[in-house]
Amino acid sequence: MKNVKGKQTYNEILGQFDSWRKNFNILRERSKEIQSFGIKNRFDNIVLIGCGTSYYLALSTAFLLTNFTKTKTIAIPASEVFFFPRCYLNKTNLIIAISRSGTTTEVLKAVEESRRINQSKVLAIVCREGSPLCRMADLCLAAVDAEDESVVQTRSFTTMYIMLLAYAAMVGGHQECFTELEKLPDIAESVTKGTKKLVEDLGQSKELQTFVFLGSGHNYGLACAAMLNLKETSLSHTEAYHFMEVRHGPFSILDRSTLVIGFVSDSVKEYEISVLKEAASVGAKVLALAKAPVNEAHYNIAVPHLSEYVRSIAFFPALHLLSFYRAIAKGLDPDAPPNLRRVITF
Amino acid sequence: MKNVKGKQTYNEILGQFDSWRKNFNILRERSKEIQSFGIKNRFDNIVLIGCGTSYYLALSTAFLLTNFTKTKTIAIPASEVFFFPRCYLNKTNLIIAISRSGTTTEVLKAVEESRRINQSKVLAIVCREGSPLCRMADLCLAAVDAEDESVVQTRSFTTMYIMLLAYAAMVGGHQECFTELEKLPDIAESVTKGTKKLVEDLGQSKELQTFVFLGSGHNYGLACAAMLNLKETSLSHTEAYHFMEVRHGPFSILDRSTLVIGFVSDSVKEYEISVLKEAASVGAKVLALAKAPVNEAHYNIAVPHLSEYVRSIAFFPALHLLSFYRAIAKGLDPDAPPNLRRVITF
Repeated sequence: MKNVKGKQTYNEILGQFDSWRKNFNILRERSKEIQSFGIKNRFDNIVLIGCGTSYYLALSTAFLLTNFTKTKTIAIPASEVFFFPRCYLNKTNLIIAISRSGTTTEVLKAVEESRRINQSKVLAIVCREGSPLCRMADLCLAAVDAEDESVVQTRSFTTMYIMLLAYAAMVGGHQECFTELEKLPDIAESVTKGTKKLVEDLGQSKELQTFVFLGSGHNYGLACAAMLNLKETSLSHTEAYHFMEVRHGPFSILDRSTLVIGFVSDSVKEYEISVLKEAASVGAKVLALAKAPVNEAHYNIAVPHLSEYVRSIAFFPALHLLSFYRAIAKGLDPDAPPNLRRVITF
Repeated sequence: MKNVKGKQTYNEILGQFDSWRKNFNILRERSKEIQSFGIKNRFDNIVLIGCGTSYYLALSTAFLLTNFTKTKTIAIPASEVFFFPRCYLNKTNLIIAISRSGTTTEVLKAVEESRRINQSKVLAIVCREGSPLCRMADLCLAAVDAEDESVVQTRSFTTMYIMLLAYAAMVGGHQECFTELEKLPDIAESVTKGTKKLVEDLGQSKELQTFVFLGSGHNYGLACAAMLNLKETSLSHTEAYHFMEVRHGPFSILDRSTLVIGFVSDSVKEYEISVLKEAASVGAKVLALAKAPVNEAHYNIAVPHLSEYVRSIAFFPALHLLSFYRAIAKGLDPDAPPNLRRVITF
């Protein structure tokens, strides 16, 4: 079995539900400590940092935190904060640093800058307890059994999203969101089973050559993360845009070989669905990820029983499988993408 | 001559230098009015908005304004501000709205929200005096003879960049940067002439299939704009990343068919050049846009006599020609990209 292509990636994709369950329980146990850190400190200027997939996670969470806590929160790639600390860190009193391994050099250096300039507090989001980033942090949320051994992030990404969403919900007083997270694993497991055939077919499609992911608000960072997962795993031509932004230029590349994948929100879905309709009208195939099936889409994955912030993560195992099947169909090994290392240091 | 493919685009690309000269003179004449608006109002929370190429201009300028004026400035796509106004506009006391035509619906609606929520002041950056956006603004900087008739932005983009850079320099007290803008057109014209053969060859290359643009700081937004220009004009597979971010995933797609185009800064060039070197080591071709030729690059466009913020714009006519030649080589008409309209409204 050792030489089966993508075995590790496959197991980690389907191991996500267990990781979520385990870490949700840990979050619940630590909720007082987490709330006390986030609420008592009265942070009024937050900068989220990460690299690659973790930066896209930061982008998504910056929206959630701003929305849930009314606190000015921005996401910046760790390298840019390290390069231009005075540009981004003035007045920052909380830096939230995301790194699967807790060892990414750019993240550690940006955190050092933040300490030096502002004595900012540090919240670390990692998948490895005791890692250098944890040791630098005032509060460390370290996921257990979630650090993928694979190069490309799957369960580590979704588990860290859940930790950050739980943090935003606890600090912002959105208890209902935290409660919903308990239902997520079972629902997502059933959704994944139900759509396995669809994503296998789409992944194997020879007609589809370009994949464009779209999302508004918290879904933009998630669209970017799904895009990067497909790019890294299957070396496909993938792009991600804010939903309405695709109309301002990128539309030129849409044709019959394009699959447009839209994370449809609840709050502005009319606008988003009209973009999906426009994409279909120029020949693109459309996959909608939404609360209810979208008539205008050729393919749908619908998750009716979760609100939009929790729902988004339920689509990820299916999207990860899409990447997996596409890599296999192209004769690639998902476990070993070219040019990449699991941990990037310098 | 009417049916020559891309005639309009070509003329607008080479007409940039005249547009810059004319509008620089206007900026100089209006400098007291501009300084008084930006300095006397003590804006401490600025949001820049735009769509497509104008959003990428906003991204670049947000860095410049933060850096030059030490004022917290962020760039958000106009649609996202319109969708989630409370998330982005709380405390915003200046909104800088960018739209070539001054009629883009998403921009107008975001400005309306900003007025409603905060009575924010509005600075409009447009290429059409008297347009709806101008009429809503407290200060309107309207470029003359810069609005391209073409669908894809060329001279309008660079001219609006110059207006925004001039604004940042005047308000932030960086007089030397404003002064340098006077030298820009002559230098850029000579750079463009000198590199025409290079970009024609690169544009016609059958080996190159994927184009990856990289930039840090203010260059990130510019890398995105160059990416979108090439995508729209030539329907090529193009991507743009923060310089260090390309190591966290996108590196997987780099191979002998990739051209990596790096906007090299002055301040962190050692890091950037090491990324270019890494790209070359996995087989990609590298074009460096820098102050001095980069040894590690296969191709160079060097502009020694301008500082980094002004220099970046000197590369654009050459990059626009790259898009133009690639479209022609693919049998496409640069004047008529598929699926797109010049002004996007809804």
